[in-house]
Amino acid sequence: MTKPVQRRRIQHVEVGVGVTPRHDSLAAEEPLEIRVAGASFAVTMRTPGHDFDLVAGFLVSEGVVARTDQLHAMRYCAPEQDENTYNVIDVGVSGRGAHVAASRERHVYTSSSCGVCGLASIDAVATTSAFDVSADDVRVDAAVLAALPDRLREQQAVFERTGGLHAAGLFGTDGTPLVVREDVGRHNAVDKVVGQALREDRLPLTGTVLQVSGRASFELVQKAAMAGIPVLAAVSAPSSLAVDLADRLGVTVVGFSRGSSFNVYTRPERVVA
Amino acid sequence: MTKPVQRRRIQHVEVGVGVTPRHDSLAAEEPLEIRVAGASFAVTMRTPGHDFDLVAGFLVSEGVVARTDQLHAMRYCAPEQDENTYNVIDVGVSGRGAHVAASRERHVYTSSSCGVCGLASIDAVATTSAFDVSADDVRVDAAVLAALPDRLREQQAVFERTGGLHAAGLFGTDGTPLVVREDVGRHNAVDKVVGQALREDRLPLTGTVLQVSGRASFELVQKAAMAGIPVLAAVSAPSSLAVDLADRLGVTVVGFSRGSSFNVYTRPERVVA
Repeated sequence: MTKPVQRRRIQHVEVGVGVTPRHDSLAAEEPLEIRVAGASFAVTMRTPGHDFDLVAGFLVSEGVVARTDQLHAMRYCAPEQDENTYNVIDVGVSGRGAHVAASRERHVYTSSSCGVCGLASIDAVATTSAFDVSADDVRVDAAVLAALPDRLREQQAVFERTGGLHAAGLFGTDGTPLVVREDVGRHNAVDKVVGQALREDRLPLTGTVLQVSGRASFELVQKAAMAGIPVLAAVSAPSSLAVDLADRLGVTVVGFSRGSSFNVYTRPERVVA
Repeated sequence: MTKPVQRRRIQHVEVGVGVTPRHDSLAAEEPLEIRVAGASFAVTMRTPGHDFDLVAGFLVSEGVVARTDQLHAMRYCAPEQDENTYNVIDVGVSGRGAHVAASRERHVYTSSSCGVCGLASIDAVATTSAFDVSADDVRVDAAVLAALPDRLREQQAVFERTGGLHAAGLFGTDGTPLVVREDVGRHNAVDKVVGQALREDRLPLTGTVLQVSGRASFELVQKAAMAGIPVLAAVSAPSSLAVDLADRLGVTVVGFSRGSSFNVYTRPERVVA
């Protein structure tokens, strides 16, 4: 079973000082497929641990169960097989909940095998991407990267009034803001940025940096890669699967931007310290 | 069309000082249904604004389009009708993307009419909830509420090492932590808390407070209500639709917990200042 915390080698960059290799602990992110009576019901990206609680609570939220006796026979899929089976849980439900579950259609990334895992998720993205971000030989100055969180905040019109929005901004390598969008959902803010560029027929977005508020998840790396963006920078930490996907696709992931320093998790040669 | 910022009357609570009525600006949250050639493809909760960009970017992320000429005839559904039609966008795609879109199964909350809107989403939750949180006459001391963000942080084992996780904690009215869970996804952290309680057959969770890191979205209010939790407290701001749903279901929503003060958005009589 994947541990909730994973160690990775990273580069810590301090503007005007230099680059220091370090080890960093990342929150694990892995897909979990929830099956009700053998049928795929949902897939969620989650941090492994307390998985049975997660399944039970998800079914409460969806109105499938409300009492513990409606929930039975929860088990990992085919536990005699390899560790990936820890990412599929099958559960039996009784009463009205069985009908509720059967009546739903859910989008499921992988549905036939027991082998849903981070690696399969990474392969799925790698085979569908129209652009090769790995080949982008863009270089970005560390001082520019360190300043992007402040530049993003300056552009947030709605956040100033509500304090409640995520933001995503596309920047040139000199720090020029190209487009900034806000949304209650971080993934939506990124979609709005990418969509604006698509509608101007500017994909692939070679030589650009995508700065986001908050954390960098698997999904955000996927969105950057699908749009041909070579550098994804997050104010906070990336997940393990975000870093694994970025490593596979050749996206530079920057995280923990704090004033004059930040971490580089993948493809550090694009950062000029 | 719903504006990206909405005003609401709230109660500002300062521990040891008292309660002041105020107006607060909230980030709007509304569902958006994306249809490809008339068929439902996805529903996302988003902040209205730049909707065509959002649709275009979402389709890039999903591998449906990569060039602007693959995207055509984007329009709001039946624009001659009421304002809710601004929450449904239909788009035509050409080439390979049309096949990609058709091959997907997507979970869609509302698929038949043009009337997907926040109100319909609220009705859907109201009719499926097994418990009536509105009737819960719990009272919570303001000093207890103000201290919960720190108590939540103290219980976060993984966050200390990674800095990258959301947390959700269930507390008694005296501030006693009952269960705390962490996850890369805030919704997963809440599901883990609720699921643990379900498995101990403790639903409905009357007389408890759910404290979450970050913001309070529509989805989190839904999860609280479905588990019978009467008070949802967030470190940051709630969305407009979260407040509307809480108002309808009778959930007390607390936000912007900052040291000794916080805001109460709905059902303030449960907070003893």
